[in-house]
Amino acid sequence: MDFKEKMTKEMATEAILLAKKNKNLTFDDIAVAVGRHPVWTASAIMGQATMNAEEAGKLIDLLELNGSVADALQEIPMKGSLDDTIPVDPLIYRFHEIVQVYGTTMKAVIHDKFGDGIMSAIDFTMDIEKKEDPNGDRVVVTLDGKFLPYKKW
Amino acid sequence: MDFKEKMTKEMATEAILLAKKNKNLTFDDIAVAVGRHPVWTASAIMGQATMNAEEAGKLIDLLELNGSVADALQEIPMKGSLDDTIPVDPLIYRFHEIVQVYGTTMKAVIHDKFGDGIMSAIDFTMDIEKKEDPNGDRVVVTLDGKFLPYKKW
Amino acid sequence: MDFKEKMTKEMATEAILLAKKNKNLTFDDIAVAVGRHPVWTASAIMGQATMNAEEAGKLIDLLELNGSVADALQEIPMKGSLDDTIPVDPLIYRFHEIVQVYGTTMKAVIHDKFGDGIMSAIDFTMDIEKKEDPNGDRVVVTLDGKFLPYKKW
Amino acid sequence: MDFKEKMTKEMATEAILLAKKNKNLTFDDIAVAVGRHPVWTASAIMGQATMNAEEAGKLIDLLELNGSVADALQEIPMKGSLDDTIPVDPLIYRFHEIVQVYGTTMKAVIHDKFGDGIMSAIDFTMDIEKKEDPNGDRVVVTLDGKFLPYKKW
Amino acid sequence: MDFKEKMTKEMATEAILLAKKNKNLTFDDIAVAVGRHPVWTASAIMGQATMNAEEAGKLIDLLELNGSVADALQEIPMKGSLDDTIPVDPLIYRFHEIVQVYGTTMKAVIHDKFGDGIMSAIDFTMDIEKKEDPNGDRVVVTLDGKFLPYKKW
Amino acid sequence: MDFKEKMTKEMATEAILLAKKNKNLTFDDIAVAVGRHPVWTASAIMGQATMNAEEAGKLIDLLELNGSVADALQEIPMKGSLDDTIPVDPLIYRFHEIVQVYGTTMKAVIHDKFGDGIMSAIDFTMDIEKKEDPNGDRVVVTLDGKFLPYKKW
Amino acid sequence: MDFKEKMTKEMATEAILLAKKNKNLTFDDIAVAVGRHPVWTASAIMGQATMNAEEAGKLIDLLELNGSVADALQEIPMKGSLDDTIPVDPLIYRFHEIVQVYGTTMKAVIHDKFGDGIMSAIDFTMDIEKKEDPNGDRVVVTLDGKFLPYKKW
Amino acid sequence: MDFKEKMTKEMATEAILLAKKNKNLTFDDIAVAVGRHPVWTASAIMGQATMNAEEAGKLIDLLELNGSVADALQEIPMKGSLDDTIPVDPLIYRFHEIVQVYGTTMKAVIHDKFGDGIMSAIDFTMDIEKKEDPNGDRVVVTLDGKFLPYKKW
Amino acid sequence: MDFKEKMTKEMATEAILLAKKNKNLTFDDIAVAVGRHPVWTASAIMGQATMNAEEAGKLIDLLELNGSVADALQEIPMKGSLDDTIPVDPLIYRFHEIVQVYGTTMKAVIHDKFGDGIMSAIDFTMDIEKKEDPNGDRVVVTLDGKFLPYKKW
Amino acid sequence: MDFKEKMTKEMATEAILLAKKNKNLTFDDIAVAVGRHPVWTASAIMGQATMNAEEAGKLIDLLELNGSVADALQEIPMKGSLDDTIPVDPLIYRFHEIVQVYGTTMKAVIHDKFGDGIMSAIDFTMDIEKKEDPNGDRVVVTLDGKFLPYKKW
Repeated sequence: MDFKEKMTKEMATEAILLAKKNKNLTFDDIAVAVGRHPVWTASAIMGQATMNAEEAGKLIDLLELNGSVADALQEIPMKGSLDDTIPVDPLIYRFHEIVQVYGTTMKAVIHDKFGDGIMSAIDFTMDIEKKEDPNGDRVVVTLDGKFLPYKKW
Repeated sequence: MDFKEKMTKEMATEAILLAKKNKNLTFDDIAVAVGRHPVWTASAIMGQATMNAEEAGKLIDLLELNGSVADALQEIPMKGSLDDTIPVDPLIYRFHEIVQVYGTTMKAVIHDKFGDGIMSAIDFTMDIEKKEDPNGDRVVVTLDGKFLPYKKW
Repeated sequence: MDFKEKMTKEMATEAILLAKKNKNLTFDDIAVAVGRHPVWTASAIMGQATMNAEEAGKLIDLLELNGSVADALQEIPMKGSLDDTIPVDPLIYRFHEIVQVYGTTMKAVIHDKFGDGIMSAIDFTMDIEKKEDPNGDRVVVTLDGKFLPYKKW
Repeated sequence: MDFKEKMTKEMATEAILLAKKNKNLTFDDIAVAVGRHPVWTASAIMGQATMNAEEAGKLIDLLELNGSVADALQEIPMKGSLDDTIPVDPLIYRFHEIVQVYGTTMKAVIHDKFGDGIMSAIDFTMDIEKKEDPNGDRVVVTLDGKFLPYKKW
Repeated sequence: MDFKEKMTKEMATEAILLAKKNKNLTFDDIAVAVGRHPVWTASAIMGQATMNAEEAGKLIDLLELNGSVADALQEIPMKGSLDDTIPVDPLIYRFHEIVQVYGTTMKAVIHDKFGDGIMSAIDFTMDIEKKEDPNGDRVVVTLDGKFLPYKKW
Repeated sequence: MDFKEKMTKEMATEAILLAKKNKNLTFDDIAVAVGRHPVWTASAIMGQATMNAEEAGKLIDLLELNGSVADALQEIPMKGSLDDTIPVDPLIYRFHEIVQVYGTTMKAVIHDKFGDGIMSAIDFTMDIEKKEDPNGDRVVVTLDGKFLPYKKW
Repeated sequence: MDFKEKMTKEMATEAILLAKKNKNLTFDDIAVAVGRHPVWTASAIMGQATMNAEEAGKLIDLLELNGSVADALQEIPMKGSLDDTIPVDPLIYRFHEIVQVYGTTMKAVIHDKFGDGIMSAIDFTMDIEKKEDPNGDRVVVTLDGKFLPYKKW
Repeated sequence: MDFKEKMTKEMATEAILLAKKNKNLTFDDIAVAVGRHPVWTASAIMGQATMNAEEAGKLIDLLELNGSVADALQEIPMKGSLDDTIPVDPLIYRFHEIVQVYGTTMKAVIHDKFGDGIMSAIDFTMDIEKKEDPNGDRVVVTLDGKFLPYKKW
Repeated sequence: MDFKEKMTKEMATEAILLAKKNKNLTFDDIAVAVGRHPVWTASAIMGQATMNAEEAGKLIDLLELNGSVADALQEIPMKGSLDDTIPVDPLIYRFHEIVQVYGTTMKAVIHDKFGDGIMSAIDFTMDIEKKEDPNGDRVVVTLDGKFLPYKKW
Repeated sequence: MDFKEKMTKEMATEAILLAKKNKNLTFDDIAVAVGRHPVWTASAIMGQATMNAEEAGKLIDLLELNGSVADALQEIPMKGSLDDTIPVDPLIYRFHEIVQVYGTTMKAVIHDKFGDGIMSAIDFTMDIEKKEDPNGDRVVVTLDGKFLPYKKW
């Protein structure tokens, strides 16, 4: 294979999203096939996490894509999904705004409960659920990360 | 009262945090007195939310602060807690990183579940809990915002 | 369909604007056909709003475009229409200038009338009209957004 | 008078807002006294427009402030109300977002109706009204600027 | 015509400048043919102003270019000619430097002569002349814009 | 003299502008006294040019200021009058916009007339005049700089 | 204690560095007294790590400083030591350059050895040693961080 | 050879990484063949260092690549591996964070040990090792640079 | 010639550098042929200066390139050779660092010797020489620019 | 000594420049007294280099300043003399422009003469001389830095 013919992760993302739309599947459907949580599955599809061979194989089987897509899904990505320093898309911006407005609050509360350290963004899981509500359904995002205390030496 | 003697919100934050430390109180303790959730209470103390007279009164009673602190807590703030476009403090940065790395994932999953629209950062609550875990305690942050569909006209 | 042959939203915008010009139509004309307000119709054409199948179908019928344009119009966009942090084009810059110069005024007046909260940019409509005036016609832009009070918790 | 004792426009803004709060007045109340529209009156108080001697005199009479406040209100300001290139406060950001998302739409529609030119931000008025609505009150902002066609030479 | 074959304004600029060079013409020569001032003519060629059909027709006649160039010249441009926030090219930078160094001087002098308002950059003409001088020829740039007083309301 | 008591150029600017206002003088009046053009005189007052002892002496005589103002006027300044990369004040921004929109036009026309080189911003004068016009008075700014050809070596 | 009299971490840093200089001590000397590694001790003095009461007590005993310095050393800092996005000081810049030039190399090598994950900057120690060398002494900086594999979920 | 057919360093990097993956080799394997340290070898492959003809020849022999790859490896690169001012990828960001948080610490400690000067990033080597640890393996990065004292003249 | 087939200055630079390498020539060799100083010759090759027809002709004769390269060398460039505001490549960064660290020193010394004014970067020559030194060869860069005093008017 | 009374390097610079002016001395005069080159002496006065006790002592003797100035001159500075990423002052900007325009030229020529490596900005001297010239005196700046070849390992 010539390196010019290699499928990039961006191309794999495009191919998967098009197949997902044509087959009318949700991320939940794909996650069931892959054997992972829908949010993690979506993050791997969006090029931000690394599938192993088995996971990638199940995905291309479900979506009837070729093996170069599976290869791309197994490459460790250069992570980071946003082009702009500050996100412009309103949905994504709202999450930036939460960090901007409540950042010092989160820092104060976490230090109050745990002392000096951080919440890991690596030993970390995220869930996104729809909570039905008569006043308007709600998006519930749960961030669950290991507390890492600062090591002293 | 001369406007030069007015207590700013930043000064009120400093005074409250010092009193909190001297009295050895947590945000939970203050929240109980104020009658609000600890995270919201912390956000008001950090100058990002607006207390009413009753809430502010309970806070200064508990912490034995004077009335100008209560006045400052009732002013609607110019919101935004970070000096830098991209936060520098590692604890706060990890939340920025989650938005940077998983922003397109969150967008894809929310549109998958709800269609075109956003999660409100105004009709919104946040909870931060400590989850004990033998492999290391975990920080669990729950973001709960109303889904706002894009209005067509 | 191969993902490389997919029509992007940018390509759909280009195709629609060219057809609009060749057929000598205004956004008002297209809006009548689509059954929506001209400003919303223009925003969907510019790639910032999502048409449903019926709306997209009417548009391609009027402009005699093929179905891949209709597909593109139904995809939820990555929103944001400007390349620069601060817009450079003089027409667009004037709106930025209004926010820059009058931003604190708008904040002060809205809080004066409504208390702490924001004007929604999602549950939101915009109208743009030409007001004839012997001293020079005027552009009248009306922004109409739901007031969202900050939730306390 | 020593130049170190001069009241800056920022100091005048602080003094007026404090007096307004202590006297429990709205911008509407002040505007009636000054003889101007409430939004313009607010913009002058926020240091973005220039009062004449009569307007400034009426304002200090109502609020019982001294003459140095009136002097400051009559100075032509260095305009611009925001510290950040992109506003951080959520209320102000929503207006920035409208320009960011709908900027090319506004350009396309205005050129469709008027040809090449801009909406003036100088020969310009703004109104901000509260529209009651059973589904939640709405903020209605009306921007009314003279169309300025590009001069050819 | 397929939208992929459309001539962009950038392509039109390239084609005109190449023809101008091959025919050994100056902007003065083209301006005479077009019936406009050389600076305005150059600005339209550089993609910053909009020609009407007659002007564009004369230009392509002189330069023997095809009709798609004339079409491109009649489209209203997304204006702004510089890629960088601060121009890098030394000739263009010197004009930026004049604004940077003398900006507050220009503001002070114009307010001194006219009161609060601005010089329009839309109802505006520019001339650039060569003034012969035994100590070295001089570039004389004349900016002539309508004074727009701030409207009060 | 202790260096803490030294008058900075910013302090001198403030003192001069206050005296100018209290004495109800224009820049033209001061320029006559100083023996220089009003724009250059204003630029020196705004801290962007260096007066000699005689010029500074005449200025403080007219305005009845003390000698430390004259000392400050004779110091060579760190030049640059704007805090922001892109000016925010609308009057100053319009000049930035002229450079942004017409920068490549100015480059093309000057090279057309002079060849490769620049207009000096150092061997440079500026005039600002009010041109009366029944359709609205006009601001006429004349920039006159020596052409400097690029030296080859 | 009034919050205005509180010693900030910046003030504590200044006081410690002055005492260190006056007593002619090295970071090694202070580290021995505190019972920690010299680099960690220096980072706490520079306001980037949190001492406990015992460590802070030993430090003020050695340097003969008062208790408010010890209080400041025990506060959890808002971390981040640089004012500029890109460091300007040449010594610090060289470390930035190493990340800029070798960043993708470090990523490639670490993934080659460990798979997808990161080196922790929290469960992390740093050593800085002087290695004597006849061709010029060398600085040897050792970064030792726990490998954190990306969690899948 | 036409300059359009020249292999760029980016293309060489792509080709080498693909061959490395297809042959299932590590950087250690390639380094042994090249006769250099694995980190330096990786940096040359990533386009940040310059191989000589012998080194490049051994590399293409091992990976069975053609001579244009060897040519590219011998060109002196425009160095710098990151697109963003602040790196976005979490692995690379952690190294940036170390410079951001500990930058002043490193400066203080190095000046304490060496006086005024810097650690060279040119007369410099880097090692990256895996240190096995029952609590989780560790990444150990050793930076070894010549101390360069500031020359006085 | 169609404008799409035109050789850009970037393409000319690529072609010349490839020919220079294939013919194993230095900039000194080319400069001798062109009849200019090697640094100026290099700057013209790098697209930052304008050759005349004779100079360009000699260059293509030596390197056996075609006439479109000569045409490109005679076009007046849009000058500026760096993509980043702050250069990333270490060799170029060191020159930036010299300006950053010694900028105010250069300003102070030049004003001390010449009064208010600047060193021209247009009426300017640069020489770069290798100075052999037993302690390591040295790069000697000589910048020679005309002093331009600020004109008063 | 209380740390609040410590003289900062900025204060020392101010004090020295004022004394230099009052005594009507040049940097050459001070350099003779200090026993160093005028440019290095100026750089130390501007807070960018570190004097030893003897040098600092000679300086305060000449200028009749007190010992706290000498202390400040001996502190190793946080280097970097410019507030802006891109310098605004025209004299300093011209040096930035030289790096911006000729940066790739300098890189090409130095690699041509020396191979891969850099010119040191640490093992570095700078001279600034006035060269008299009937066509206008010239500023000659000589940068002399050790060539540092990239170490391979």
